[in-house]
Amino acid sequence: MRMTIGVDIGGTKVAAGIADSEGRVRDVVTHPTPFGDGEALADVVGGVVRELRDGHADGAVAAVGVGTAGFVDADRATIVLGANLGLAEEPFKERLRRRVDLPVVVENDANAAAWAEVRFGAGRGSGHVVCVTLGTGVGGAVVMDGELQRGRYGVAGEVGHYRVVPFGRRCGCGNHGCWEQYASGRALVGEALDLARAEPKRAERMAQLAGGEAEDIQGREITAAAMEGDEGALSCFRAVGEWVGLGLADLAAILDPELFVIGGGVSDAGDVLLGPVRDSFARHVTGRSTRRLAEIRIAELGSRAGIVGAADLALR
Amino acid sequence: MRMTIGVDIGGTKVAAGIADSEGRVRDVVTHPTPFGDGEALADVVGGVVRELRDGHADGAVAAVGVGTAGFVDADRATIVLGANLGLAEEPFKERLRRRVDLPVVVENDANAAAWAEVRFGAGRGSGHVVCVTLGTGVGGAVVMDGELQRGRYGVAGEVGHYRVVPFGRRCGCGNHGCWEQYASGRALVGEALDLARAEPKRAERMAQLAGGEAEDIQGREITAAAMEGDEGALSCFRAVGEWVGLGLADLAAILDPELFVIGGGVSDAGDVLLGPVRDSFARHVTGRSTRRLAEIRIAELGSRAGIVGAADLALR
Amino acid sequence: MRMTIGVDIGGTKVAAGIADSEGRVRDVVTHPTPFGDGEALADVVGGVVRELRDGHADGAVAAVGVGTAGFVDADRATIVLGANLGLAEEPFKERLRRRVDLPVVVENDANAAAWAEVRFGAGRGSGHVVCVTLGTGVGGAVVMDGELQRGRYGVAGEVGHYRVVPFGRRCGCGNHGCWEQYASGRALVGEALDLARAEPKRAERMAQLAGGEAEDIQGREITAAAMEGDEGALSCFRAVGEWVGLGLADLAAILDPELFVIGGGVSDAGDVLLGPVRDSFARHVTGRSTRRLAEIRIAELGSRAGIVGAADLALR
Amino acid sequence: MRMTIGVDIGGTKVAAGIADSEGRVRDVVTHPTPFGDGEALADVVGGVVRELRDGHADGAVAAVGVGTAGFVDADRATIVLGANLGLAEEPFKERLRRRVDLPVVVENDANAAAWAEVRFGAGRGSGHVVCVTLGTGVGGAVVMDGELQRGRYGVAGEVGHYRVVPFGRRCGCGNHGCWEQYASGRALVGEALDLARAEPKRAERMAQLAGGEAEDIQGREITAAAMEGDEGALSCFRAVGEWVGLGLADLAAILDPELFVIGGGVSDAGDVLLGPVRDSFARHVTGRSTRRLAEIRIAELGSRAGIVGAADLALR
Repeated sequence: MRMTIGVDIGGTKVAAGIADSEGRVRDVVTHPTPFGDGEALADVVGGVVRELRDGHADGAVAAVGVGTAGFVDADRATIVLGANLGLAEEPFKERLRRRVDLPVVVENDANAAAWAEVRFGAGRGSGHVVCVTLGTGVGGAVVMDGELQRGRYGVAGEVGHYRVVPFGRRCGCGNHGCWEQYASGRALVGEALDLARAEPKRAERMAQLAGGEAEDIQGREITAAAMEGDEGALSCFRAVGEWVGLGLADLAAILDPELFVIGGGVSDAGDVLLGPVRDSFARHVTGRSTRRLAEIRIAELGSRAGIVGAADLALR
Repeated sequence: MRMTIGVDIGGTKVAAGIADSEGRVRDVVTHPTPFGDGEALADVVGGVVRELRDGHADGAVAAVGVGTAGFVDADRATIVLGANLGLAEEPFKERLRRRVDLPVVVENDANAAAWAEVRFGAGRGSGHVVCVTLGTGVGGAVVMDGELQRGRYGVAGEVGHYRVVPFGRRCGCGNHGCWEQYASGRALVGEALDLARAEPKRAERMAQLAGGEAEDIQGREITAAAMEGDEGALSCFRAVGEWVGLGLADLAAILDPELFVIGGGVSDAGDVLLGPVRDSFARHVTGRSTRRLAEIRIAELGSRAGIVGAADLALR
Repeated sequence: MRMTIGVDIGGTKVAAGIADSEGRVRDVVTHPTPFGDGEALADVVGGVVRELRDGHADGAVAAVGVGTAGFVDADRATIVLGANLGLAEEPFKERLRRRVDLPVVVENDANAAAWAEVRFGAGRGSGHVVCVTLGTGVGGAVVMDGELQRGRYGVAGEVGHYRVVPFGRRCGCGNHGCWEQYASGRALVGEALDLARAEPKRAERMAQLAGGEAEDIQGREITAAAMEGDEGALSCFRAVGEWVGLGLADLAAILDPELFVIGGGVSDAGDVLLGPVRDSFARHVTGRSTRRLAEIRIAELGSRAGIVGAADLALR
Repeated sequence: MRMTIGVDIGGTKVAAGIADSEGRVRDVVTHPTPFGDGEALADVVGGVVRELRDGHADGAVAAVGVGTAGFVDADRATIVLGANLGLAEEPFKERLRRRVDLPVVVENDANAAAWAEVRFGAGRGSGHVVCVTLGTGVGGAVVMDGELQRGRYGVAGEVGHYRVVPFGRRCGCGNHGCWEQYASGRALVGEALDLARAEPKRAERMAQLAGGEAEDIQGREITAAAMEGDEGALSCFRAVGEWVGLGLADLAAILDPELFVIGGGVSDAGDVLLGPVRDSFARHVTGRSTRRLAEIRIAELGSRAGIVGAADLALR
């Protein structure tokens, strides 16, 4: 069985492991991510690759796949902009090739994780999948006809920055009304804070879980309270779920996938999130009375998805 | 050189011709479209195919491509819903195969026309193209990595029904605020009528071209007045162009094409439309200060695009 | 006890009666409304006044108050624009004075009805009241410090045409997104039709009450079904009630009344409407955690409010 | 000629002067505002009143009018909530009466300033005026039939918190989409910062005036640049002016004033602001083709308006 090494470069740590062709990972190692220094980053990744190969026969490891934070160009070689890594126009594939005598592929980390879900996770068996990551912001990846769609310049799938409200909430991207201002983890926290200001009693349980102060409420407290059945927290998920479902309906109009896979921290709430999302999607999708509705599922692979997806992409 | 037959089935007429592999068409013939009768429609198309093959050597025509109004399934065989044709769940490929001993492909007409633009028209040489048709409504087609993207159920590219205004204008699809309510030919006429009511003088030239009555203003009068430089008509194009550009910006966030091709009756205005569209796109696209902006061009092939595209798809 | 005559001029009929200073009306008579002829209309009203005075001692009737469809100027003398009556710039007070030797006051009919509610109906005892009429459209009247506020040109209270949705639904007034497109009886019917299209089963009871066809559903069927507890009809009231409450919240920010009185056909649903309206109002009103919230009540006087209010205004 | 004392209590200073019945003020004195101590504040105001009376004959000063930051109840006696003063439910009239043997009236400072404009400034001679203050936020005051309208609980005129965009920008009041998020000085600065991020060159002049850094741009720099004719700054005023005019159109639908008076820091730009505001108002007001349009003027009295208005209100 051919094995590949998957590397997941995040803003704080580099995680890597060896994966087989079934998406099973082992020997996971992590290192801190150096900031603003492409050579140092390549040293770390090169070192990790050597470390992982050590226990294996020559030729047992066929390739290296790297999923990295930031925008990656369409040639899957250059980190065009990686704000969290302090890098721009970084020829990372080239640097790594000088350190590792294996084929190397560099991919955006959201794409890598999405690919893992399509190959081995919630999207297994589906050829038309849109993955949406509801984290601090909203990211996405598009798989059509079994292929990851990167767009012409490598930045397809920036679904968090399509606009849902004209003149809406200000977004860090410079626009107003972007989907991620309504459907993200930050939006979920915003709902809880609004609730705490307007109707403090309904936010009490969330505040209690946060240590007593409403302003300390984070996503994890909202999720925990909602999973206990707390009505205030559930109302926050309903509000965000409405926007998530509405956005999926727009994406369905454009892309017609058979499946949406929802990941990211907000998706930890599982059915508490899925219920409102599916309900909203069914109400908003165009042609809803005649078309076959796409399914909506929660991502399955968790934090290892980045390694798994990068490793698998190295084989293609 | 291999030749194929392209057939374009519209609500009123069936047009067909023979195309070579360079997208050149000849021998175009047309017939009225029978309504609500799949067998009769197959008879018409079968007859047309025989007619077109007659003048050619056996084997000279390699295949038949059909572009048809309505939704076509992902297997490119069945007209799932063709309201203008009075058909539903129509196994049209099968019916045609019984009449024609050539390989047959059935495709949605907007997809066929878009494919023609990508192969031989405004999108020649581009692998990542989104085509948007601004007619009575708004249609679209998505080409990624050189492939027409049909989605899982064949209805990808329904860009006219993604939502741009929450609680916005009622759309025939049952939703509110769909893009086509703001960016279509009908929206353009709505702008002119609004102007005629609110500031009759500014709509005078358009009314004059329409025969004197403001309520008779149609797209062609607005276009004609605008191309003369009439300020009122130009303001209608600015309003619609703003929404077109904004929608393209959203599509760019999701799909990252290198090119948008704008077709349909509204695009007859050429630069009068393109100016406001490009300006709006540049102001609205996420990451506009760092990303490479997609180009925006007017479609080139006109009414023959459907035949050309269908013929070419038959070869693939 | 002083008595006055109140006249209510609507698009189809003129209704009039004698009222005492407690708002009790008797001897109500009606006549068809002549169209497009101010003299004929004055003849009808003059005749009605003579008819009503006949049974009473000389001097028993002190004045005549007329509430009329259309815009009335700030001097309460001229019908500036009465589209339903076919009149414009009609000096109606002058015409009536030539036929009736009593003091005459002309007022907009919505203002007259609102005044009746404030004096003798749901607003009895309140000095700061906003009346909102949810009929085919949305009308309004503003009472501040015990005085009917007509504005400088007599057209204050056109609350149906303040904008709630930028780029929203087209309104007959030439604007887009006016409140009356979301909060009126017509909007309620629109909700039911949307529901019938998207989820026919949920609209079945309403369609049944309308004689079988969903497209025949009118306000009365929605109200009847909702009052039976039909879930689909209730969802229509929730949707419209949300917009009504939101609009009241905006009016509260501007006018700070102690009471809103809701009249018009949509208000026949009583608590079925009031529940969602109050809930929405409480969620949307600025300063809701600290301010004293205005009450919201259904109008009490029904179709006689116009006569009662006009009669009472004649005394002031 | 009767004279009164006007006192203007702001968050940082108490300003007071003696006014005659023509709105002329003299002997203006100022003191720092004590925070969170109603007795201390009453001491300051009482002292100021004694100081101002000193130079005048007994009986020459007829009354004291106080305009204060914060909400004042409808009885014009209690500061219900004065966040900037650190006061709540403060019986200020009562406290002042114990120190001053003159009739005392307490009024909200925005109301006082608006009243001054109606009596002696831009609104002189008009009975139906809406004053809108475009400062950091947006405040307002409503004069109908020559009377200041306080509403039932003293908080009428909170026009900055009526909603213009559903799901719009978050507002400090706990709602989203409030007018003040789009039409205030803060919104003007937001436009400049957005411009600086998206198209740095167009914001260069403003940044230069701010000392070099775009992020230091404040309202005064935008105003200064716009008055020089700087295109980028003018575009900021156009964007904000569009929203101001749209809001005035909504207020006209509800209140039908003959005049809007625009004050606050943003109004220092004069015609640079008025042009876009009037244009937007004319495009958005309902019934614009038939109704008489309200005038829109800049406030005239500047920072003394608060003293003048409070002094005049003391006489009524």
